[in-house]
Amino acid sequence: MPRYCALIAYDGTNYFGFQRQREGQPTIQGELERTLTILTDQMIPVTGSGRTDRGVHATGQVVSFQTAWKHGPETLQRALNANLPTDIAVLQLDEVQSEFHPRFDARQRVYQYFIYNQPVRSPLYGRFHWHVRQPLDIAQMNAAAIQLIGLHDFATFGTPPQGERTVREIFHSHWLRQGPVLVYEVAANAFLYRMVRSIVGSLKLVGDGTWTVDEFVAAFRACSRDRCGTVAPPQGLRLVSVKYGKTSDQ
Amino acid sequence: MPRYCALIAYDGTNYFGFQRQREGQPTIQGELERTLTILTDQMIPVTGSGRTDRGVHATGQVVSFQTAWKHGPETLQRALNANLPTDIAVLQLDEVQSEFHPRFDARQRVYQYFIYNQPVRSPLYGRFHWHVRQPLDIAQMNAAAIQLIGLHDFATFGTPPQGERTVREIFHSHWLRQGPVLVYEVAANAFLYRMVRSIVGSLKLVGDGTWTVDEFVAAFRACSRDRCGTVAPPQGLRLVSVKYGKTSDQ
Repeated sequence: MPRYCALIAYDGTNYFGFQRQREGQPTIQGELERTLTILTDQMIPVTGSGRTDRGVHATGQVVSFQTAWKHGPETLQRALNANLPTDIAVLQLDEVQSEFHPRFDARQRVYQYFIYNQPVRSPLYGRFHWHVRQPLDIAQMNAAAIQLIGLHDFATFGTPPQGERTVREIFHSHWLRQGPVLVYEVAANAFLYRMVRSIVGSLKLVGDGTWTVDEFVAAFRACSRDRCGTVAPPQGLRLVSVKYGKTSDQ
Repeated sequence: MPRYCALIAYDGTNYFGFQRQREGQPTIQGELERTLTILTDQMIPVTGSGRTDRGVHATGQVVSFQTAWKHGPETLQRALNANLPTDIAVLQLDEVQSEFHPRFDARQRVYQYFIYNQPVRSPLYGRFHWHVRQPLDIAQMNAAAIQLIGLHDFATFGTPPQGERTVREIFHSHWLRQGPVLVYEVAANAFLYRMVRSIVGSLKLVGDGTWTVDEFVAAFRACSRDRCGTVAPPQGLRLVSVKYGKTSDQ
């Protein structure tokens, strides 16, 4: 049966995360599977590149599934977009080789985190940004953020899936300012649960002066979840891309 | 009684425009007045710099009102933000001289219009953008847009308030690209009803090749509402600022 790979975007506000949950708790995976069932009259399991938490968004999630659909990927993409809720969209859909696995084959995940850094809340930034009132020092936050680059034990910043280790490799980690918004971009081979939000919450403590860069580094090197700063709220986080193929493509 | 001037932002999605409507139709003006009544136990009329239509947003609307509030503008701003719905915020609040009128004293209004220009809809751009699938030629759209600058009769692009003329002065009018988004910014001394959305809908016809720049200019010069292109939908539009004071401040 042909296998398809789809690039997915979603506004995670109204979902209990990517991964299927019990009845009455809508998820991205659940909506994709429900819509595929409507279109094909088959039960089709959908696999993602990884979970995103409740309330987290994506502009570049990758999923895969098999179906005997006969009308070509373009028609399937259109049919999916016509039947999915408006807060989920299939940006691209291609047939791939049957061995493709969106999680095991992924070489790199890229996340962005958005902070709206102004003294007063703004209604246009509530849905996809964390509102931080205190002025943040982006130079200090970058001085701390670059310390994360490389192969390290990230136990301070997240918990692993059962039985796994807490070592991950971060390829880049930096902040940039876009007007009133601070954007953090981080790429790694893989992430622990809550890892990006834990890093952002801790870097925010550097930005507002609660921690020095050295205190951040000490917490990081302690490899202990107890040393993490606050965990940043989910609505600022976006999975922006997943990269496959040879390491040289990174 | 002291007069206050407030800078207001709102997500207009769930409102019937700025201007007070009948019961059961929530408006920005209505919510501001209701909240001021809760805080002060007085009926306080709120005046805006101008109306925005149903579904239109603002990051820089200016309103004014009088109240005998005794605890200073900072406390009033905090109390308003604590009691307003989360889709309306007071970004700034100052006491002003009692003759100040946010509509009559305004010298310039600036609007931005956001188009998400990609073949497939994106859930993260649905709320504040118009989704246009066909690729748009921004160079052609700019060639047409600059023709609007100056003192002209804009009858093609809008209807005036009762009894008024259709001549307005546009100070700037241009498009810029931000990744997948096209942003149109236009500043004028004042606008007719639906004027920005009518201009954007007509410039979109230039961008997608339906109209040449010359056809756009001919429609503009005809000074007839019948010659307008489509009217762009409200969710892409934002009132970004209102300018006061001497003409030289423009």
